[in-house]
Amino acid sequence: MAKIAIIGMGLIGTSLGLAIKQNLRSDLTVVGADRERENATKAQRMGAIDRAEGSAADAVKDAELVVVAAPIIAVRRVFEEIAPHLRPGATVTDTASVKGEIMKAARETLPAEVNFVGGHPMAGSDKSGPDAASADLFIDARGRPRTYCVVPSLDAHEQAISTVRGLAMLVGARPVHIDAEEHDALIAAVSHMPIVLSLGLFTMARSSPAWEDLSSLAGPAFTDLTRLAGGNPEMALDIISTNRENVLHWLDRLTAELARYRELLNGDEERPLHEVLLKAQIDREAFENQVPERREPAAPAQGGAGEQFLNILVGPRLMQRSRELADSIKTDPNEQRLRERELERAEDDGSGSTNGTGKA
Amino acid sequence: MAKIAIIGMGLIGTSLGLAIKQNLRSDLTVVGADRERENATKAQRMGAIDRAEGSAADAVKDAELVVVAAPIIAVRRVFEEIAPHLRPGATVTDTASVKGEIMKAARETLPAEVNFVGGHPMAGSDKSGPDAASADLFIDARGRPRTYCVVPSLDAHEQAISTVRGLAMLVGARPVHIDAEEHDALIAAVSHMPIVLSLGLFTMARSSPAWEDLSSLAGPAFTDLTRLAGGNPEMALDIISTNRENVLHWLDRLTAELARYRELLNGDEERPLHEVLLKAQIDREAFENQVPERREPAAPAQGGAGEQFLNILVGPRLMQRSRELADSIKTDPNEQRLRERELERAEDDGSGSTNGTGKA
Repeated sequence: MAKIAIIGMGLIGTSLGLAIKQNLRSDLTVVGADRERENATKAQRMGAIDRAEGSAADAVKDAELVVVAAPIIAVRRVFEEIAPHLRPGATVTDTASVKGEIMKAARETLPAEVNFVGGHPMAGSDKSGPDAASADLFIDARGRPRTYCVVPSLDAHEQAISTVRGLAMLVGARPVHIDAEEHDALIAAVSHMPIVLSLGLFTMARSSPAWEDLSSLAGPAFTDLTRLAGGNPEMALDIISTNRENVLHWLDRLTAELARYRELLNGDEERPLHEVLLKAQIDREAFENQVPERREPAAPAQGGAGEQFLNILVGPRLMQRSRELADSIKTDPNEQRLRERELERAEDDGSGSTNGTGKA
Repeated sequence: MAKIAIIGMGLIGTSLGLAIKQNLRSDLTVVGADRERENATKAQRMGAIDRAEGSAADAVKDAELVVVAAPIIAVRRVFEEIAPHLRPGATVTDTASVKGEIMKAARETLPAEVNFVGGHPMAGSDKSGPDAASADLFIDARGRPRTYCVVPSLDAHEQAISTVRGLAMLVGARPVHIDAEEHDALIAAVSHMPIVLSLGLFTMARSSPAWEDLSSLAGPAFTDLTRLAGGNPEMALDIISTNRENVLHWLDRLTAELARYRELLNGDEERPLHEVLLKAQIDREAFENQVPERREPAAPAQGGAGEQFLNILVGPRLMQRSRELADSIKTDPNEQRLRERELERAEDDGSGSTNGTGKA
């Protein structure tokens, strides 16, 4: 039976477990571990994992796929902890919202026999912990797949990349390939800047002498826009400090944009402002209704994604078995040729299956 | 039977109608009118009003309470249109999110025999029109009453103020008395600035050459924070241009706050930023969980609010009847004294009832 290990049973780790179990009930064991044992126990009770392990090292043993769903700052430590216990050929991925630092940590800590493929599901919340988890975290309010960034390391096998792509599709998301540097630059604008902005609006109002009255009058606009300011401060610190240059870049861009609005507001004529508002509404509506651009093959139907994922996942195990078999019978040259062909077939069966059903 | 007229069957007008009808089924006729006849018909089908009238002038005839739920820019025109048709002693209120301009328009257009009390329910949405309306618009996601600003004109009778307070409570909201100038200054920070901020973030990203990739990667944070940029551009223009000075003031405050974050991000030490993030989280949580400050008496239970509101609403009508009666029988001095006493009782019955049950 194939095995997935999830390290870190917080919002993302537990949601991944729930979505995996929901979409693929059999032929797969999902185990989990968390520094806080209680989180793993809770995740197990919720049905996100089959078994809570006492340590990350125990959890990853013999797993084809390891998902490190830990806070950015903890990822390197987890890599170091699991490195000696990873199964050769295993695929390791993460879920952190910064990729440059993570790819570096993977290069420096993980053994050469495993494949690292960074991952980042665009599915945060101001809530954290397993209690806030949901199998639906990876689809939006209108049922559309959320984006799941897939960031392969330079030497990752095609098989491992397919595994992480398969994971993204299995949980309902839409995998998008991107390199780490581009990821961090873009995510700073759409995920990290909003945190700073939300904080800015909140602390601006909070530090005003009129705060008591302001908070009494605050309606849904203020509440929604400042929600991120109430998120986990350590997570925000991690994100901001590991992606500082990019955040600063966009912060300057935003400041310039606000200065432009200041000009528009101060202008004698209403028309230029009206035009900007009108265009923004049209563009925002187009954004809200956008059909995700198909840079990636369409996600197959749920059942298809499950089977396909399983095929990819157990591919390496088949290969490993074939190799062991081949090693043990290296006697008859004919027999050996036969085994080699079996090995080739097994490899095709693994990474090749995407071509067969990927467009379903 | 008491009568309420709602002019403007958009999001707010229709939601008010739905909430009024839900909480007070009998003894009250609610009529509505909209420049677009279809909106009024729709509101009637939804049960927000008993009858759709063809014009604002027709709708306000004989109404004790007139709610002008029109866009800011249209309010003065509606005032002018209804002025000759208002019942003497009627209470007129509005729902616009700017109060200075509206109070001025009311002073300049409405007859002296009616009482104007400005209103502003803190219950917007990026959606508009009757289709987006809901009886629950005036309570938040956790069932707590939203704030409903009550801004009496200088010469409004206590009775009229009680009527608008009663309306706020009837629909589930929490009335907060405030003067127009203070209202506009505070609302600029918590309602109008968020619009500019949302626009700034959206157009910053939209105007980037990387927009295609940015929009593909945008997750819930970006979507939520830019939602207001997709709102009605004319409404935004109205708000911004009628409250320009206050918006500019807060825009400068926000720019200064973002510059502070820039310093913090650029600093050599993480600790100052960490402290700011930590304090923001604690403060934001306190804000989210705040028990509304009781500057106002507690809202009575739903049934109570309905009866109380009706008592206040029909108060003027009782007074009017008594006066007519008194005028018609000004013959016997004893009879006249009796009528005068009846008149006093009726007045007590109206405005006085708040004292009796207001603390329920």
